Amino acid sequence: MARRDTAFLFDLDGTLIDSVYQHVLAWKEALDGEGVDISVWRIHRKIGMSGGLFANMLLRETALEITPARLDRLRQRHADAFNRQHAQGSVQPLPGARELLAYLTSQDIPWAIATSGRMETAAPNLAALGVDPATVPVITRDQVRHAKPDPDLFLAAAAQLGVDIRQSLVIGDSVWDMLAAQRARALGVGVLCGGYGHAELQQSGAFRVYEDPADLLRHIDEIAARD
Amino acid sequence: MARRDTAFLFDLDGTLIDSVYQHVLAWKEALDGEGVDISVWRIHRKIGMSGGLFANMLLRETALEITPARLDRLRQRHADAFNRQHAQGSVQPLPGARELLAYLTSQDIPWAIATSGRMETAAPNLAALGVDPATVPVITRDQVRHAKPDPDLFLAAAAQLGVDIRQSLVIGDSVWDMLAAQRARALGVGVLCGGYGHAELQQSGAFRVYEDPADLLRHIDEIAARD
Repeated sequence: MARRDTAFLFDLDGTLIDSVYQHVLAWKEALDGEGVDISVWRIHRKIGMSGGLFANMLLRETALEITPARLDRLRQRHADAFNRQHAQGSVQPLPGARELLAYLTSQDIPWAIATSGRMETAAPNLAALGVDPATVPVITRDQVRHAKPDPDLFLAAAAQLGVDIRQSLVIGDSVWDMLAAQRARALGVGVLCGGYGHAELQQSGAFRVYEDPADLLRHIDEIAARD
Repeated sequence: MARRDTAFLFDLDGTLIDSVYQHVLAWKEALDGEGVDISVWRIHRKIGMSGGLFANMLLRETALEITPARLDRLRQRHADAFNRQHAQGSVQPLPGARELLAYLTSQDIPWAIATSGRMETAAPNLAALGVDPATVPVITRDQVRHAKPDPDLFLAAAAQLGVDIRQSLVIGDSVWDMLAAQRARALGVGVLCGGYGHAELQQSGAFRVYEDPADLLRHIDEIAARD
């Protein structure tokens, strides 16, 4: 009996969009503004988790009091700082991102986007990719109860495509994507363009790791789409 | 015959100072300004090399013409963007950095700083650490012919301390520090606080890896300073 992976479920920031480092420093600015002292690399290693989980974990690690008002202020400060970077034009699609999505479409391979971010920060990224959320399934943190590393975002994306999650590939740049992929029983494919190391992605379950979308597209017959 | 490692030779940015991500986005801004299109994670993976080597490699990878004028403009744009971040107060010593240096001094263990940067960008970092270059050996890129991954900076630091490089530890956050340590026949100790992964540092020769200076200080009897 033939069995092929039939759908691509993409993370957005760090996987299709070159925005991780800007997000990291936007969180740094937000946390500094709240008097939360934390090293930048630790923020980087938490990026891509659910925003709420991320803030909870940071505040827990720094032993500060967590209040809903403080979390709201953090989220707002982060969004302001990130959107300032975006307005300067420093946030762009990663090499090969648009080409990879166009290739999948041309091959009738279903694909979707599943991001731990909210639509307010995802919208400009989708526009930069030329992705119209009216025609492409885009699952954001607004639509599920738990974001990554819970599997909900990818499960919702597969459901919206009408595909079996167990025959789907999850493409992501972070450890949280790879853990969520395993928890969903999808197959995880890592990309280095979010700044995690190769071994970090493999150790969290990536069955294959590429540099970026362009590198994945060059090697796509290694993982899918064989005809 | 007893043999102990007797000196600590430190990298600066990413090892004692939490400045790598700010340097990365400062280089991104400088390269954008020159019309050089390169993903941010690739800049991160080159940080800590000799600035000239770094710029040469980026320009080679992007197949642009390399002129001395363009390199000068890149260096100036980077320094301007980085110093803007510094002026905002976002660049601070890493946890435990000051305490580790104070501990070494209290134990009469010689230490020095060896950075691929120039004194113009290193000076505010040294001030933040409370290090006075008049009393502590600080080797910058201005003083050697080749910066990392060449071993010159660490060799010069050991010479200035009057210690044998083969009985010295090199503490750094980047692959380039670990390669330079091996080329100098020192022993490399990696720290994760520059954002490289654990395996990347081990694979480039770190014989031990800690999270940051505070973590190294907590475990210092693993690598040195046994009494």
